[in-house]
Amino acid sequence: MMLVATVSSSREIELANAADLLELRLDLGIFDFLPKLRYIVTCRRKADGGAYEGSEETRIEKIKIFAEKVNAEFVDIEFDVPDDFLDFKCGIIESYHNFKETPSFEFLRDLVESKRGDYYKIATMGKTMDDWKKIVRLLLEFEDIIAFLMGEEFRFTRIASALLGSPFIYCYVGLKKAPGQIELNEALKILKSLGVRK
Amino acid sequence: MMLVATVSSSREIELANAADLLELRLDLGIFDFLPKLRYIVTCRRKADGGAYEGSEETRIEKIKIFAEKVNAEFVDIEFDVPDDFLDFKCGIIESYHNFKETPSFEFLRDLVESKRGDYYKIATMGKTMDDWKKIVRLLLEFEDIIAFLMGEEFRFTRIASALLGSPFIYCYVGLKKAPGQIELNEALKILKSLGVRK
Repeated sequence: MMLVATVSSSREIELANAADLLELRLDLGIFDFLPKLRYIVTCRRKADGGAYEGSEETRIEKIKIFAEKVNAEFVDIEFDVPDDFLDFKCGIIESYHNFKETPSFEFLRDLVESKRGDYYKIATMGKTMDDWKKIVRLLLEFEDIIAFLMGEEFRFTRIASALLGSPFIYCYVGLKKAPGQIELNEALKILKSLGVRK
Repeated sequence: MMLVATVSSSREIELANAADLLELRLDLGIFDFLPKLRYIVTCRRKADGGAYEGSEETRIEKIKIFAEKVNAEFVDIEFDVPDDFLDFKCGIIESYHNFKETPSFEFLRDLVESKRGDYYKIATMGKTMDDWKKIVRLLLEFEDIIAFLMGEEFRFTRIASALLGSPFIYCYVGLKKAPGQIELNEALKILKSLGVRK
C-alpha cells in the first residue's frame, strides 16, 4: 500500500516527506516549485469536491501539460470524461466521487466493470455500516480498486480499505482536502502500529 | 467493539484499565485477587495454544466454578466440547483455534453455521492474504462472529476485523499470549486515531 499526500501548494509538498506519492490538486493551488518526486496529477471540478469551474477541454489540457511537466506516474480522471480525452502518456486512475451518498453495490460494480484506466477510485459519502459493506465487497471481488468512504465517522475506512487491498491511502498535510481524511504522519503511525509499514 | 485484555495473573488485571472485558486464562495463572469487573472465563488446552493438560471434566468444572465466582459475562468453550458440558449461567463464546493454518472458507462456514453459543470465535494462523479474505467473507456473511488471523504478519487483522464487525479485540497486557496480539494501550491508541473510540 502507498501513502498519497493530497497537496494544494509547494509548501504542502515540503510537509509530505512521508508520502510515497503526491496528488497535485491543480484546482486548489499554484505550484511554483516541484521537486523530482512521484506525482498523481488531477484537477477536480466543483461537482466532485474541487474548485475548478472552467471548460472540460481546458481542464484536461491543463492536466496533460502538468503531467508531462512533472513526469507524472498517474493522472486522475473522472469516470464521466469521454474516451477521446483519455490520451495520456502515464497511468490513469479513473475516479468516481459522490459527496452525497454511497450508491448501491450494483451501481458501483457496474462502474468498476467499465474501468478504462489502470485503477478505479471510488470515494463516496458514508452513512451506514451497509455502505462500508458495499466497499468491502468491491475490494473482495475486484482487483485494482481504490475504495473508501468519506465522512468523519468513516475515517477508519481509509485505513481499513488499505488492509483489504486498496492500494493508495489518500492523506492530507496542511489543510484537510476531504471529509474524514487522515493527516499523513498520523496515518503512517497507525500503519506502523499495525505492523504493515516500517 | 470491545477491548478484551487476556490476563494470566492478578498483576496483569491491574495493568488492564483500558479494557472493557478481561479474559481470565485459568490455564496460565493463579488469580488471588479478582476485582469486580466484566470477565470472560476460559481454560485453554495445550492443543489450543494453552497450558492445560488435565481431563475435560475437570477443565469444564474449573471454568464453571470460576465463572460463577466472578459472575462472568461469558465463558469461552472450544467448538469440540460436547453439548452436555455447555450448561452455563452466562453467555458462551464458542471458539475454534488453529495454530497451524487457516482452513478453507467452507470449513469455517460449516463451523459457524453449527454455532451453539452466543458468539463464534475463529482464530487461525494466517499465511496468505487469501486467508484474510476468508475471514473477511465470514464477517460479511455472518453475525456474532469474532474472527481474525494469528501471526505477527497479520496483527493488523485484529484491528481490521473489528472494523468489519468483529465485536471483541483480544489484546495483551504484560506478557503476549498469542502470536500477533497487540498491547492493550497500543490498540486503544490505534482505535482513537481511527476515530472509532473516544
